[in-house]
Amino acid sequence: MKKIINRPEDYTDDMLRGIYAAHSDLVRYVENDLRCYCTAKKKKGKVAIVTGGGTGHLPLFLGYVGEGLLDGCGVGSVFQSPSAEQIYNISKEVDAGAGILYIYGNYTGDIMNFDIAAEMCEMDGIQVKSIVGADDVNSASSENAGARRGVAGIFFMYKCAGAKAAKGGTLEEVLEAAEKAKENIRTVGFSLTPCVIPELGKSNFTLGENEMAMGMGIHGEPGVWNGPILTADELAEESLDTILKDMPVESGEEVAILVNGLGATSLEELYILSGSISKKLEAKKIAIYRTFVGEYATSMEMAGASVSLMRLDEEQKRLLDAPAYTPFYNQKG
Amino acid sequence: MKKIINRPEDYTDDMLRGIYAAHSDLVRYVENDLRCYCTAKKKKGKVAIVTGGGTGHLPLFLGYVGEGLLDGCGVGSVFQSPSAEQIYNISKEVDAGAGILYIYGNYTGDIMNFDIAAEMCEMDGIQVKSIVGADDVNSASSENAGARRGVAGIFFMYKCAGAKAAKGGTLEEVLEAAEKAKENIRTVGFSLTPCVIPELGKSNFTLGENEMAMGMGIHGEPGVWNGPILTADELAEESLDTILKDMPVESGEEVAILVNGLGATSLEELYILSGSISKKLEAKKIAIYRTFVGEYATSMEMAGASVSLMRLDEEQKRLLDAPAYTPFYNQKG
Repeated sequence: MKKIINRPEDYTDDMLRGIYAAHSDLVRYVENDLRCYCTAKKKKGKVAIVTGGGTGHLPLFLGYVGEGLLDGCGVGSVFQSPSAEQIYNISKEVDAGAGILYIYGNYTGDIMNFDIAAEMCEMDGIQVKSIVGADDVNSASSENAGARRGVAGIFFMYKCAGAKAAKGGTLEEVLEAAEKAKENIRTVGFSLTPCVIPELGKSNFTLGENEMAMGMGIHGEPGVWNGPILTADELAEESLDTILKDMPVESGEEVAILVNGLGATSLEELYILSGSISKKLEAKKIAIYRTFVGEYATSMEMAGASVSLMRLDEEQKRLLDAPAYTPFYNQKG
Repeated sequence: MKKIINRPEDYTDDMLRGIYAAHSDLVRYVENDLRCYCTAKKKKGKVAIVTGGGTGHLPLFLGYVGEGLLDGCGVGSVFQSPSAEQIYNISKEVDAGAGILYIYGNYTGDIMNFDIAAEMCEMDGIQVKSIVGADDVNSASSENAGARRGVAGIFFMYKCAGAKAAKGGTLEEVLEAAEKAKENIRTVGFSLTPCVIPELGKSNFTLGENEMAMGMGIHGEPGVWNGPILTADELAEESLDTILKDMPVESGEEVAILVNGLGATSLEELYILSGSISKKLEAKKIAIYRTFVGEYATSMEMAGASVSLMRLDEEQKRLLDAPAYTPFYNQKG
């Protein structure tokens, strides 16, 4: 295991200590629990947005807590859900009187804990709505789209809902912005190497010398095929074909794209891939309104990438363009 | 070779095509040469800053071209210098009537080409000053500090000089800001895995199962020792000891730290390491004014990190705090 760590069992909390030490002006924790991660800049009267999930995906999830995005994040151990109580404690802290929206990935443990936390909040008179990200096209068929896993496309849900909340939207409106984003986001991902869970010390699967896994999940869930590594152009083609078959986009329509690195893939490669994507969309006369390239949702040191596409209308363009400012993600308005 | 690319020989230009397609509002190229990378937002009367270097280190070098930072960047092939003619063409384009500062890393090929470009500029009546980053403590002894390689600490030189130029500083003042930063920056780096040059297809050295290389350069230059992987706390200790022996910092003084990932090391690990650094500085009563964590100067998919420390005074704090905005680096003012 080639990691820069102390004791593997301290991985999550050591990481959190480092984050709080570096960014104490912007984020803090409550209930004396490092894993109850909240913005230090609460805004009265604003709809609060809370997310959460396992460690190992930085900047997902906690990296999106900040101005123009989210208000709190429950931090689980590596690839594990935060507890219902942690989510509840965060919710009490960030509630600013206008209700809370939970946005998180479509995973069983998270659903259970966020649902319990929502019930606890409601007993306190705090109104909570929930929505899960489920953008990974290859993880379930279109007939069963509700079973799809949430992956990098959740960034667009955060961005739209966060901007709506920052502009003073009601809980209903913020939820609608997240729903509309969700309907218009699709993602395809692929892995070239596995990653290692610190406490296990080795990866729980292998990929051969020249082998990749199309459709693999961000926790290493099996994909739709394993085979020789495709070129960037071929990966762009297969990703877009899969996405556009599931969510047709007409020529003349506008989209945003997110080319996300899973951890060990260089930014150089991500731009080679985004160049391939943009060539192919141009050939289809689909206009790219905005391109996001970088690490948005990782699997620690996994090599690979994902391609997300979001179909846009005028309102969504304005939400994507709104400013955002967190220790991990800055966007000028 | 586990990379998302097309033909290895197109690596640099495919990357550049992707970058221009994604960020055409902010950057462009001149002389019909993709490798002559310039800001699209030239400011009349401002001192221009030009950098350059080989591909394979994103966001270094071109990622720092933008508001509050640099104006142009010569892009070489993987780990190769850009040509003198490219640097000259960029210089002519970004010159805004107030002279140009060249800031680049201390490597033989770069020095030769930047010097020739400076002469070409001077024949055109464009005033040019030059300074090289040479922050890698382990690459040469303190008696021979001028021979040190430039690594991630160059970010602080860019930031200080860029902020000074944005505030309307003269060429002399911008150079002074870079010089003062340079005097007060030290870096120690270490690698856990090699990286692969696309056209070679394999790494030109190996590291064993549990082996790391302390002091290795960002092109794989040999370090000061190879041995078993240290813990984050031990790495923080050795890095700080090396840095502070070379550049003493008194208790009560303030510093900025930059914990930089070399490519494949996860952000989780970088924060574990920055947490270790901040604990150790706290014990020495050295105050951390600002912490930067992330990928600032990489070696493609190399695993490893570097720790840079910059000793600060009030003026330097203001320069570090100034806003910056590029496709790769955003900082709110």
